[in-house]
Amino acid sequence: MRAGLGALPGAQRMQIATPYLMFLGDVPDRLAAKTAYGIVDWRPEWCVGQLRLPGCQADLGIPDLTLDEAVAKGCKTMVIGVANAGGVLPEHWVSEVVAALDAGLDVASGLHARLGAVPAIAEAAERNGRQLHDVRHTDETFATGKGTKRPGLRLLTVGTDCSVGKKYTVLALEKGMRARGLDADFRATGQTGVFISGRGAAIDAVVADFISGAVEWIAPAADPRHWDLIEGQGSLYHPSFAGVSLGLLHGAQADAFVVCHEPTRTTMRGVGHKLPTIQEVIDLTVQLGRLTNPDIRPVGIAVNTQALGEAEARKLLDDLAAEHGLPATDPVRFGVEGLVDRIVTEFPG
Amino acid sequence: MRAGLGALPGAQRMQIATPYLMFLGDVPDRLAAKTAYGIVDWRPEWCVGQLRLPGCQADLGIPDLTLDEAVAKGCKTMVIGVANAGGVLPEHWVSEVVAALDAGLDVASGLHARLGAVPAIAEAAERNGRQLHDVRHTDETFATGKGTKRPGLRLLTVGTDCSVGKKYTVLALEKGMRARGLDADFRATGQTGVFISGRGAAIDAVVADFISGAVEWIAPAADPRHWDLIEGQGSLYHPSFAGVSLGLLHGAQADAFVVCHEPTRTTMRGVGHKLPTIQEVIDLTVQLGRLTNPDIRPVGIAVNTQALGEAEARKLLDDLAAEHGLPATDPVRFGVEGLVDRIVTEFPG
Repeated sequence: MRAGLGALPGAQRMQIATPYLMFLGDVPDRLAAKTAYGIVDWRPEWCVGQLRLPGCQADLGIPDLTLDEAVAKGCKTMVIGVANAGGVLPEHWVSEVVAALDAGLDVASGLHARLGAVPAIAEAAERNGRQLHDVRHTDETFATGKGTKRPGLRLLTVGTDCSVGKKYTVLALEKGMRARGLDADFRATGQTGVFISGRGAAIDAVVADFISGAVEWIAPAADPRHWDLIEGQGSLYHPSFAGVSLGLLHGAQADAFVVCHEPTRTTMRGVGHKLPTIQEVIDLTVQLGRLTNPDIRPVGIAVNTQALGEAEARKLLDDLAAEHGLPATDPVRFGVEGLVDRIVTEFPG
Repeated sequence: MRAGLGALPGAQRMQIATPYLMFLGDVPDRLAAKTAYGIVDWRPEWCVGQLRLPGCQADLGIPDLTLDEAVAKGCKTMVIGVANAGGVLPEHWVSEVVAALDAGLDVASGLHARLGAVPAIAEAAERNGRQLHDVRHTDETFATGKGTKRPGLRLLTVGTDCSVGKKYTVLALEKGMRARGLDADFRATGQTGVFISGRGAAIDAVVADFISGAVEWIAPAADPRHWDLIEGQGSLYHPSFAGVSLGLLHGAQADAFVVCHEPTRTTMRGVGHKLPTIQEVIDLTVQLGRLTNPDIRPVGIAVNTQALGEAEARKLLDDLAAEHGLPATDPVRFGVEGLVDRIVTEFPG
């Protein structure tokens, strides 16, 4: 266990300058550009244009721009929101990254390989005084978590498993709450989320001692009526990742949480363990979350009903709502009005 | 959350070759060599000699050796188990490290600064084909935790707080269980522990997604009667480190646990939170530990009674034993016989 360090200035480097030029390289299909599509879906106003190389099989539906055109239109960062085969940055991508830095852009990457590990890229960044962001890696030294209650309101999405819609739910809530005049900001804890918020940290890449401290940095003290909507990770019941989920819960000091669930899954992702029930997740989240916020409470259930017909989906949600006394919705299919209603009722201005 | 990777061959580099030459440099006092003293206390048979520079104010009470003498006596690794001021390796230490590598020794360091970050050291290691170990850092790629029950028996020390004797208790148990003919090995999860076991990982330095996976590597499948005695970290009730403690518990799949406690402490280390009771720690450890081992159970209580007189200490231990129905001891002051008795009774051959 480490002594608490003050958050170092380096942590501020996690702020990615917007707007973005989206680099797609010459990816072979849409799936390889999944992260880029997520960014365009949630932050269209930041995605000024795309840069594609000959042979590229993805198209974000935004203008194709040269580097000079992107700079002229005000772009600040070229975002590499694509997967490359083999983990090594191909030579013809390296030259594009160098050209972007020479044109005056920062570069942010979601690749496994670190940009700065390529000497030509490191030199170009240095030469031009530009920032490189590797959102899959976190070299930042965070403070250890303090556990002291800080002002502002916080909502965390938790899950019966990994990959059940935790990021999507907080993003949909950000939109829905802002539309109702609430002061709410999405707080990213995963790599796609970091691009979408322009800030945050991939919490699964943080050194273990600093999980809760990193979350305290991601969702810092704020106005008492301000909502941080914090992207959850993993599950308290997942044998691989429960430690991450617990550190996230303690660092978030969540006032409210939404349980996310995928109803057709029977075993937890990547392991043979049985999925917990929604009630088990509610109970354990309240029990453990009380350590840093004695008033933590559930405000709803978000279900990914993609695999169900509409009537079946509606019945499931009605049943869950009745069983738990909480609003239940599929945020994609049926919106988040019920969740926002509950939040407003539980936390009146 | 990451996909499970196979443990990479690199992970094997964590095995530190023994016996050791203990490098003390020119530390100004005994405290700066705390780690080195801990290694000599628990592994005197591995500590062939010490290498001290002019002005050194620490003495491990073992022979002073030159590098050549150490090699002649069979030393395999020079261990830097000292703290240096300022975090930067002083030049006259660098030349000693290079000389050790040239003499044919590996070098293992508990310093904050990485050995390999010093070009002269990196080159000397390369030139001589020697290993560098930085036990405070973990570059290894572990697999994510599987949660699958593996053969062998495992005991974990857990705590009401950080720094309450978890390492000491498993080391004392290793000695006591071996003396009773049991097959038991200490498994390190902190830096001093890694030197003492020659293997392991500083779990607080592992990237968050791999905590439980790293513990699965530290305490792998073994003979059904073999005991892994796993060094605990933090506390499930510590707001800074509970995530680490939970990942450790899930990865350990502990069959048995010992609760460690310091009776004069009222708030948790580094934060203002009230210390949990021993019963709260027992209950939560059983509740959460069941995810990866449904049969987990407490086998005793270890109390650091240093601040108490002998009569007071004995009364406290008697009271705790009666209250919890478990053997209670101070391993330093009164030994671990009662704990070993309980282990033998609960897990008969």
